[in-house]
Amino acid sequence: MVTLHRGVVGVVAVGLLMVPGPDRHVVGQTVETAENVVLFIGDGVDDHQLTIARNYLLGSSGTFVFETFDHRAVARVLTVLEDDPGRPEYVGDSASGGTAIATGIVTSRGRIATRAGTGEPVPTLLETVAGKQTGIVTTASITDATPASFVAHIRRRYCQGPADMLPTARDPRCPGDLKGNGGAGSIAEQIAASGVNLLLGGGYNYFDQPDEAGVSVLHRARDAGYQIVRDADALVGAANMPGPLLGLFGAATLPVEWIGEGGGQARPVQLMANGEPITPEPFRCVENPEFGSRPTLKAMTQSALTRLESAESGFVLIVESASIDKQAHAGNPCGQIGETRALDEAVQVAVRFQEQHPDTLILVASDHGHSPQIVPWPSLFAALRDEPQYPSGKVARVHTPEGGVMAVSYGTNEHYREEHTGTDVPVYAQGPGAAAVRGLIRQSDLFGIVRRALALQ
Amino acid sequence: MVTLHRGVVGVVAVGLLMVPGPDRHVVGQTVETAENVVLFIGDGVDDHQLTIARNYLLGSSGTFVFETFDHRAVARVLTVLEDDPGRPEYVGDSASGGTAIATGIVTSRGRIATRAGTGEPVPTLLETVAGKQTGIVTTASITDATPASFVAHIRRRYCQGPADMLPTARDPRCPGDLKGNGGAGSIAEQIAASGVNLLLGGGYNYFDQPDEAGVSVLHRARDAGYQIVRDADALVGAANMPGPLLGLFGAATLPVEWIGEGGGQARPVQLMANGEPITPEPFRCVENPEFGSRPTLKAMTQSALTRLESAESGFVLIVESASIDKQAHAGNPCGQIGETRALDEAVQVAVRFQEQHPDTLILVASDHGHSPQIVPWPSLFAALRDEPQYPSGKVARVHTPEGGVMAVSYGTNEHYREEHTGTDVPVYAQGPGAAAVRGLIRQSDLFGIVRRALALQ
Repeated sequence: MVTLHRGVVGVVAVGLLMVPGPDRHVVGQTVETAENVVLFIGDGVDDHQLTIARNYLLGSSGTFVFETFDHRAVARVLTVLEDDPGRPEYVGDSASGGTAIATGIVTSRGRIATRAGTGEPVPTLLETVAGKQTGIVTTASITDATPASFVAHIRRRYCQGPADMLPTARDPRCPGDLKGNGGAGSIAEQIAASGVNLLLGGGYNYFDQPDEAGVSVLHRARDAGYQIVRDADALVGAANMPGPLLGLFGAATLPVEWIGEGGGQARPVQLMANGEPITPEPFRCVENPEFGSRPTLKAMTQSALTRLESAESGFVLIVESASIDKQAHAGNPCGQIGETRALDEAVQVAVRFQEQHPDTLILVASDHGHSPQIVPWPSLFAALRDEPQYPSGKVARVHTPEGGVMAVSYGTNEHYREEHTGTDVPVYAQGPGAAAVRGLIRQSDLFGIVRRALALQ
Repeated sequence: MVTLHRGVVGVVAVGLLMVPGPDRHVVGQTVETAENVVLFIGDGVDDHQLTIARNYLLGSSGTFVFETFDHRAVARVLTVLEDDPGRPEYVGDSASGGTAIATGIVTSRGRIATRAGTGEPVPTLLETVAGKQTGIVTTASITDATPASFVAHIRRRYCQGPADMLPTARDPRCPGDLKGNGGAGSIAEQIAASGVNLLLGGGYNYFDQPDEAGVSVLHRARDAGYQIVRDADALVGAANMPGPLLGLFGAATLPVEWIGEGGGQARPVQLMANGEPITPEPFRCVENPEFGSRPTLKAMTQSALTRLESAESGFVLIVESASIDKQAHAGNPCGQIGETRALDEAVQVAVRFQEQHPDTLILVASDHGHSPQIVPWPSLFAALRDEPQYPSGKVARVHTPEGGVMAVSYGTNEHYREEHTGTDVPVYAQGPGAAAVRGLIRQSDLFGIVRRALALQ
């Protein structure tokens, strides 16, 4: 037994993953309060995507660290129509999903922390934890929809930098959000003015743009006190320098850690002259030589936790593994698997932090489901029918280290990127307040769950 | 507080769904024992399939009764190659999945309660609960793979009746399992000799066949003491007649409860002359006029529980909603939705039974994932790209009662039935022993979880 923060006594940190469990919460006793929160978002993660990655990374009997957490829920991904916010839309995106988690509301696709229909801005988690330090880590541009949902308020997710604000032939963009029109400017401009203590990710290009007054957003960020770093060495060098930190480790989305060997990715099924499908050649996953000297998600998470550890009143840190989604869109199973590995490695860093700081709540959530599916190859019906049997879309076959071959099908878009899907998504939690993560919740419930864990409501 | 079976005291049955929760299980105290088990299997159920059905049946904010259960786990669906049982197969079927749940082993696709490679028969749950009554209820033929896994032992799932045993041009079938070759005969023959107290479902055709000795399997069943009923009235009439009961309410799979209005089902996307996809006309779900005078899954479950309630040493009842899978294979969202409704209604019957009999463990499990996916319509990229954007396979759009339109895509087989998929599947549990259903388990763990709940190991 050890004494936790705020005088609550409990059994903690016995062994690698043993942390305070629900048994401590005896009825009638005050529920322990979290001082810190690390909220992970696996972009596009659903049970199917986890199974794909697990089969490769850990074998079909393996277990991700977050899958050992004491508490698990399933979250419904609710989205509404912009033109008729009383009606449901059954597939969300990172903007509506990120906004649900960040603000507790249900909104329409593309919206960043604003209400469907009215556009009313809604306070985000990071804006409502007064006194605590805040941070965002992502493998996407930090102006991308998921991280943006925690720090900006704007109609359209694609208004990432000042150059993205005016209408194009295809997209109405965000002229109403220009500062000259009384708005708060692009997402990058809002980030520069946000006061968030730590931002690490990609998206340099969105900051390296002049705003309406002709001043670059990078300059605005520096004026606001941000130290700006651009590679792994500089991030290490900044460790002992106080003040807000803006790490921009790539022009936009950071390169992924893994790719398919020999360019292996999903392709349309090729047929022989008799119409039978040609079995796609299986491939392995290998490190991406283009990853370069950037910090990994694990390294960024470690750096963020080291920096935030000294926060006097605790902190809330958002960590997104963004390219699980982006690689699923692109039909790259190895990209997706490698970025799920990155998520699990980053979670492990947080678990070690939690062992030293049991007043830390760790959550692992997702913004929406995705398209890749493990399918049988050959078909279940290959031997039973005359007609050739093969998936309608693209297929990749991957050699798994445990000695199997896993076929992954992508069938949601015939000519371009795969679509999001409308499935429920999992949520994992461990630490004070985690017991509220149970059963079937709404994605938007996570906002209140975190705030209650922090004793803010 | 009430006294439960076997002298254990607990808080039970307060309110509609309140049953013994984990808080009662104080360390060091004897864990309560289940007297009865009702194990539901939603064939082909995964999180995505539940979301599809929930959106229609209950609205996107609704909750199935089993989703309110105290305990939930995720089960990995493990399958191995028949020719190399040390190697994983990443997609299972109802035979391997049913066998995992029924026997606790991991086997190859198509096998019924026998080991991959060797063919060694493995005792099933229903064969190892000596003294308890046993029952099986299904909307499939009771000779179909999932129910068969609990009562028969055979190499190939398609050897359902005596006429199915000899090799065909496409399938080697089960000549080694002929009685004349030292085997136990077809699945129907094994069922007739099983001693299972109650079997309700379809599959009359597999029993109405002569065995190797020229005696019909129906006759064998009667000789073994089974009363045979063939419609809902006869089932009601048999309620007060003791002895084993065999209800065969259709020739093979029972008709589904719901269909798409006007024949609505998934179809390949049609294109306009300019290549843009034609938006499929949405449809509603309606009752299937061909369902006829058969008992519903709910009615069969109620009948079974009424019959088994008087079992002196308790019972184990298996209830399968089989056509969630079969309708997903066929691209019929309304069929799938209606059969998921049937599952939930049958679970509600069991929950009411549990309120009166708190020594009853209820489990809701699945055998494997399936292909249908909720996709955006129009595409997420419809306005952003020149190329037309639409799913590769078949699509249906369904009017939901809450006022939305849900698009469901089927892209795993271009020319025939949709495939199973390799995702993890959910498990729900409530009642004594249910607390073992947590985290990430193996499907095959359910065998031991049920037996431990019954204090059999």
